[in-house]
Amino acid sequence: MKCKVCREHAVVDVRRHNAAFCGDHFVAHIHSQVERTIKEFKMFTPEDRLLIAVSGGKDSLAVWDVLVDLGYDATGFYLDLGIGGYSERSKEAAVAFAGARNQKLIIRSLAEEHGFTVPELSRLTGRVPCSGCGLNKRYEFNRAALEEGFDILVTGHNLDDEVATLFGNVLHWNTDMLGRQAPVLEERFLEGGPSDAEQLGARRVLVRKVKPLVRIAERESAAYALIRGIDYIIEECPMVEGNTQHRYKEAITLLEESSPGTKQHMYFGFLKRAADRFAPDAAASEIVACVDCGAPTIVWEEGQTPRCSFCKTKALALHRKETGERPAPRRRRR
Amino acid sequence: MKCKVCREHAVVDVRRHNAAFCGDHFVAHIHSQVERTIKEFKMFTPEDRLLIAVSGGKDSLAVWDVLVDLGYDATGFYLDLGIGGYSERSKEAAVAFAGARNQKLIIRSLAEEHGFTVPELSRLTGRVPCSGCGLNKRYEFNRAALEEGFDILVTGHNLDDEVATLFGNVLHWNTDMLGRQAPVLEERFLEGGPSDAEQLGARRVLVRKVKPLVRIAERESAAYALIRGIDYIIEECPMVEGNTQHRYKEAITLLEESSPGTKQHMYFGFLKRAADRFAPDAAASEIVACVDCGAPTIVWEEGQTPRCSFCKTKALALHRKETGERPAPRRRRR
Repeated sequence: MKCKVCREHAVVDVRRHNAAFCGDHFVAHIHSQVERTIKEFKMFTPEDRLLIAVSGGKDSLAVWDVLVDLGYDATGFYLDLGIGGYSERSKEAAVAFAGARNQKLIIRSLAEEHGFTVPELSRLTGRVPCSGCGLNKRYEFNRAALEEGFDILVTGHNLDDEVATLFGNVLHWNTDMLGRQAPVLEERFLEGGPSDAEQLGARRVLVRKVKPLVRIAERESAAYALIRGIDYIIEECPMVEGNTQHRYKEAITLLEESSPGTKQHMYFGFLKRAADRFAPDAAASEIVACVDCGAPTIVWEEGQTPRCSFCKTKALALHRKETGERPAPRRRRR
Repeated sequence: MKCKVCREHAVVDVRRHNAAFCGDHFVAHIHSQVERTIKEFKMFTPEDRLLIAVSGGKDSLAVWDVLVDLGYDATGFYLDLGIGGYSERSKEAAVAFAGARNQKLIIRSLAEEHGFTVPELSRLTGRVPCSGCGLNKRYEFNRAALEEGFDILVTGHNLDDEVATLFGNVLHWNTDMLGRQAPVLEERFLEGGPSDAEQLGARRVLVRKVKPLVRIAERESAAYALIRGIDYIIEECPMVEGNTQHRYKEAITLLEESSPGTKQHMYFGFLKRAADRFAPDAAASEIVACVDCGAPTIVWEEGQTPRCSFCKTKALALHRKETGERPAPRRRRR
């Protein structure tokens, strides 16, 4: 196996591109794929201030690394979810990377900000950890980006992540989710805000979110991190067992193995030929400000008090924590 | 495991319905599921003359059996594809069923009608057997139904078949195929016909096609055939190896096992919430009459002579058979 570019010994093969690369040219290949994605979807420019949601895993550290190398203004953001030793070790990986690359890293802790960790939240609400965790991350990433004045929130979602999400949305034909599944989610503004808000006029409530790794497969971002000497956390989150996203990845990976390129075709084919057909479903839900925190939320029934999912979940968790009340036994998951 | 209806010993469980049945009540369950499907999609009435495309396998014999039991006017049609002993044994199964149930069976042979078998066609055209086979069957089923004056063509496609097709169409975002994927394909008419056609005015060129087993999973139609003592051909077609449809079934079955109902949700969710969005793509292609046989075909480029895929493929095969010319080596399949 020889490098496609220099014919030296190759260390990574990319079957769907029918190519192999030596270490240096693989790094160059990833850089050019990410730069191409940024341009193709008009994600951001060197003038934008980027906040990178960093988990300490291969994808988020890889995207941070690439963006720094490409000359973008990229600050890391680590949210401590309080998942025991796993969270400690992933924070260490994020801190070590920032130190080694001399980059700024903002750290917040869910427990300090809101009074609960992800495992506590799952126990208090009786819901699967992944759902609460996703909610927390979406909420806190957005809040941090807005409060710290960043233009763009960058996540490390790779091709495999996006395909698994797409597959799940197609299995259930979640038409509004299909309408929102894109490498760029535009920022949103709202008039007014919470009763005690001082802002006047439209305020930004959703930061622009982008996924520069949508052309990079999971094993490629792992190979990139390895070659670049990025010391990422390899262990999986201990709470992830039975996660449906994992099962979707397994099913599609079966097909990718016998037919390389399946994932890329599915994802980019969707963006090109199908996504627009679902856009109206996503746009149909108008956002309003949460009465508690001012974050955007959707009112499903007329007359309902607008309160966002995060505030509802938080209120429930804190109430149960205070009263000792326990959730009903969890139903068998589909 | 007890029968949901009579509490006797159950012989079949249907996990996605969270139910189990004894033999008699399983047969009743399948009958009612098929009758429900026929009504739901307004497939046909007892006044219609139905032609059942019978392969000798479990699905086509099961659907024929159910329709006869439900009192519909159902005639079998067997097309001998000339796949050696496999075709002989499947014909025997079809003939035996028709004899035992005292039903009429029409038999035609591809070799007698057109001068080649499916294995020959694959060798002569250099294409994978399944693609030529599908083309032949679609063409010959439709032709037989029209020539013999049937109102409706019934096929034994089950839930697993439809989901695998849907999955393949979604992996590649074949938007026109998605627009046409339905339990009922309406009949189509054309003005005029081939130069020597005697018909005047609009003539029917596509028979109405229906799939009454779309609510029945593969293992359920197998269980039905077993319980009903239908002696179907169990062996798979020897040419099917590496068939992509099989790989799609495997991938989705992985998910069905951990989450019963996945297939049904995916298929009926598609019909309910997504199919309409793709309908314009299917409708965009206008059909015209093939200059050779009068069958409907699509002209993709202006000025092109309208000749259907079947006639093109047949002409190529017969030309090569006559001249001994060989196809170019087959490319690696995706």
